Amino acid sequence: MNDDISARLSERGLELPDATAPNFAYEATTQWGSLLFVSGQIPRRDGVIDFTGSMDDGRDMDEGIRAAELCALNVLAHVENAVGLERVDRLLKVNGYVASAPDFFRQPVVIDGASKLFQAVLGERGKHARTALGVGMLPANSLVEVEAVFALLA
Amino acid sequence: MNDDISARLSERGLELPDATAPNFAYEATTQWGSLLFVSGQIPRRDGVIDFTGSMDDGRDMDEGIRAAELCALNVLAHVENAVGLERVDRLLKVNGYVASAPDFFRQPVVIDGASKLFQAVLGERGKHARTALGVGMLPANSLVEVEAVFALLA
Amino acid sequence: MNDDISARLSERGLELPDATAPNFAYEATTQWGSLLFVSGQIPRRDGVIDFTGSMDDGRDMDEGIRAAELCALNVLAHVENAVGLERVDRLLKVNGYVASAPDFFRQPVVIDGASKLFQAVLGERGKHARTALGVGMLPANSLVEVEAVFALLA
Repeated sequence: MNDDISARLSERGLELPDATAPNFAYEATTQWGSLLFVSGQIPRRDGVIDFTGSMDDGRDMDEGIRAAELCALNVLAHVENAVGLERVDRLLKVNGYVASAPDFFRQPVVIDGASKLFQAVLGERGKHARTALGVGMLPANSLVEVEAVFALLA
Repeated sequence: MNDDISARLSERGLELPDATAPNFAYEATTQWGSLLFVSGQIPRRDGVIDFTGSMDDGRDMDEGIRAAELCALNVLAHVENAVGLERVDRLLKVNGYVASAPDFFRQPVVIDGASKLFQAVLGERGKHARTALGVGMLPANSLVEVEAVFALLA
Repeated sequence: MNDDISARLSERGLELPDATAPNFAYEATTQWGSLLFVSGQIPRRDGVIDFTGSMDDGRDMDEGIRAAELCALNVLAHVENAVGLERVDRLLKVNGYVASAPDFFRQPVVIDGASKLFQAVLGERGKHARTALGVGMLPANSLVEVEAVFALLA
């Protein structure tokens, strides 16, 4: 990790979680030329999923936002582990999924937790296209899941 | 926009909505070389979401189809705004999401509203791979959401 | 299909389904340079959807797994039909969707049916990044849907 990125993380009191290998039959990332695909990340740290259940109108929005941040940190941890964050040329696309009750429609506010974190850490290179969706449930009862596609410096 | 594309739009009585910047912390599009990613678009025109709620067996299919068309027009508006529609070499991939009651399974008919519009406007260059999904709810209670990946002419 | 891939399929008693053209207004695949996008595939063989409904805690996990395998076989059938499986350099990304009751959270176990099949048939080239999601319902009441992005040999 270069000094700029390290500094931005520690300024915000952020720490990358361990980039743990998936428990299932897939890879955390695949690289093809300058494209890096990162598998869907759930809000896990030290083997524990910190945010479960689903968002509804009664639940504190901040829980969803912090869940999305932790998903984004896991994405960044896998990029760091695979190629090094200093290799990122541009974050091209983020898809964010929020486990939601039928009456919850503020998925964009939740996924902004991930989007703002990417930009805080990567600066201009963290600006990205995005799709935010609500779903009824997520793997392992996770509250949020985030996947991403990056372009790498040659 | 070149004359061909303008003509096809006006022949069908279609008009691109304004390509409004996202209200949240992401970009409408990202470009990397010849690839253009377009963020998920909801059925909005002039700041108003025209189609909300979810599809069920009792709801007129035509509402879903027109919602999908409006999402597709927003996708095209952002392509026009970012690079110009005449730069499109090929629409590579469309993902379409339909807010659906548990007993509604005709998402492909709804998303065909977007697929047919892309081909009406872009001709052969509008032929694309696609995934259609049903979800319980969408951001801002939108009825449909559509995202796309384009290849651009060099 | 080259002999290696044929042998791996028949060793496991697998047979590719027919690569049938979509019933709706899209293409089964799009190719752009060395990238191949494959549309979302449902668990269909000979025109019949073999696995419908949704997963819940009471349903045999094996049904979900076999549904995911059949989706993956349909993905491979379309790659074979479009460019030939021997052209695959790397399976870059798989997204797998499982129609799920609200209390079902083992989508990764289900989608492993697809992931393991890709690797059984393609070997190291079948290793991929992945996102697994639960959704309330899928087109045509399908139990599982799988889409993929491949890199091709030049």
